[in-house]
Amino acid sequence: MDPRITELAERSATIPGVLRLGGGLPANELLPRAELATALADVTSASPDALQYGTARGSAAIRAWITRRLADRGAHVDADRVIITAGAQQALAIAGSMVANWRIDVGDATYACAIDAFAQGGAHVVRSGGDVHYVIAGVSNPHGIDKVDRIALLRTGDPLIVDEAYAELRFDGRVPRPLLADAPDRVWHVGTISKTICPGLRIGWLIPPPGALSAALQRKMALDLQTASISQAAFARFLATVDYDDIIARARMVYAQRAARCVDAIRRHVDGISITEPEGGLSIWVETLDRGDDVELLETAISEGVTFDPGSSFRPGDTDRICMRVTFSNLAPELFDPAARRLGRALARFRQLPRRPRTISQRIAS
Amino acid sequence: MDPRITELAERSATIPGVLRLGGGLPANELLPRAELATALADVTSASPDALQYGTARGSAAIRAWITRRLADRGAHVDADRVIITAGAQQALAIAGSMVANWRIDVGDATYACAIDAFAQGGAHVVRSGGDVHYVIAGVSNPHGIDKVDRIALLRTGDPLIVDEAYAELRFDGRVPRPLLADAPDRVWHVGTISKTICPGLRIGWLIPPPGALSAALQRKMALDLQTASISQAAFARFLATVDYDDIIARARMVYAQRAARCVDAIRRHVDGISITEPEGGLSIWVETLDRGDDVELLETAISEGVTFDPGSSFRPGDTDRICMRVTFSNLAPELFDPAARRLGRALARFRQLPRRPRTISQRIAS
Repeated sequence: MDPRITELAERSATIPGVLRLGGGLPANELLPRAELATALADVTSASPDALQYGTARGSAAIRAWITRRLADRGAHVDADRVIITAGAQQALAIAGSMVANWRIDVGDATYACAIDAFAQGGAHVVRSGGDVHYVIAGVSNPHGIDKVDRIALLRTGDPLIVDEAYAELRFDGRVPRPLLADAPDRVWHVGTISKTICPGLRIGWLIPPPGALSAALQRKMALDLQTASISQAAFARFLATVDYDDIIARARMVYAQRAARCVDAIRRHVDGISITEPEGGLSIWVETLDRGDDVELLETAISEGVTFDPGSSFRPGDTDRICMRVTFSNLAPELFDPAARRLGRALARFRQLPRRPRTISQRIAS
Repeated sequence: MDPRITELAERSATIPGVLRLGGGLPANELLPRAELATALADVTSASPDALQYGTARGSAAIRAWITRRLADRGAHVDADRVIITAGAQQALAIAGSMVANWRIDVGDATYACAIDAFAQGGAHVVRSGGDVHYVIAGVSNPHGIDKVDRIALLRTGDPLIVDEAYAELRFDGRVPRPLLADAPDRVWHVGTISKTICPGLRIGWLIPPPGALSAALQRKMALDLQTASISQAAFARFLATVDYDDIIARARMVYAQRAARCVDAIRRHVDGISITEPEGGLSIWVETLDRGDDVELLETAISEGVTFDPGSSFRPGDTDRICMRVTFSNLAPELFDPAARRLGRALARFRQLPRRPRTISQRIAS
């Protein structure tokens, strides 16, 4: 990630009145605060375990829950193969570091911090033709639609890093069959509760191929010993008191409505763009034919009172074509119109600026 | 870490009646459960922030607390230079990965998972004569005494990774002046609340040299985006309601008493060993002149109903000399006698066994 983007994100968060179309945050209104507050207090009072060291593999209750849900979708996995990670991000960092001498292909655009995790772990990130393939199943980030060609992928016989961060947030509820079910020996399966429940507990998971489990577990230990006991104990308690499918069903409904409002507002107020209508997830992928430094566009947007995620972060190579990830999940629906108007003004102003070359080098070869 | 040790640790935790002298856990009785339960529930109820995404750098309140305490000890650091990490372990993993092409010297014995973090991050771990020096300040782990030769270290002019995990738990309360105060441009300063408050929140910190801050922050993001918001929000709230120095003072007293009882019990019941009497921390370093596979000794000990941490994990090279880290912090004082008796029996039985060579290769060059 361009450090200027991190800095602008931190700075814009402190400016009052800035409307955030960046960041990929789930809706504040959907965070199950009361239930988690109770679970957190309960597990901390009940025993010392929630505050002590646990195991590198993580909570047996959560691992069993994960494998039950996968079994319902056709993938039968022993719970001992699951490692609870600090979000999907750590699962990607571990998987990436274990195929570090290989070329990982990620397509034309993908989750920005996956590119960073792979590149920083020493892998060679490419747009196509890799030895390992990274895909975001069900709903791709940043595209908002399913980009996975299952049959072609399975035919390659190559290792696959399969990120299901958004799979359960398809608006139509059609969560695809896990690739893990059909290629159990070569899939690195990645999941998370960050989009469906909350990111602040930092709970995700990695199911490595059986032959890589022991090494992945050693890697997890070397990175942070274990995922926070408090988060795991509280989430396990939470699961025993809620209906997870109800929670997801409600989230799908809320996000589908926000997506429609947001697409509509952007189409009306931002000129010279093309939008992929999302099938799920938290954001919309907006493309233009403009070229330039999209961090400069972000600066212009912040001065207009709106943020977005610069597309260059998501694109391995071709980083000077202006694209934007626009997150609809954590903005009140009545704010989409003013936010889109500000974004439209920022883009119009940006188009009048003299073109400067991007000031950072590309992170990857492609 | 030898995977057999991880496996034995997991297995022994499920056997009723096994007395644990391994693991390095703080005392269950000292965990501030009531205060943390309140803090956790309060911050979750108060705002969505504790469950949302935060920044890679982490909680401003905790970073300010860290720098205030360092300033009291003579090291003046801007709070923007502090990165909140998932325990000291992640701080070590980040620091290690950023000096990965160098040789890190760690001395004759050191924190087992630091060796793993450095080695897995690609560094070359050596016993002496490295380009970078890893030291555990105040109270070394596993020795339990201060092993740092400050003057010699500062004279080298080399980068230093300084781990203060146990510095505040010296029984005499004489927390040494931070090396950061005297070598601000080349110290990677590492701290944690895992030993003083609790490990289950996974809160530690890294203060990289100023020139490495931006890269370290990018590395943190690639590894897990950020440390758990819930842990950080709750700990910040907790700090506002307690007297941290009182908490440490009480811990020092409890641990000093347990250390004395434990040393006494081991001296009475275990033959043919030498003990370094600890100046602080949570454990005792026990050396023998025996050679062999200490994982075999651990298996024997578990069959006698006691655990310890095999010394081979802590020793870069010379891994077949039998040493043991014996943790006194989380065992009720009346159990030291039976635990030491079991350990004595296990060592006696082990000495009768036919010697088999260690079955794993050494992790490092030395």
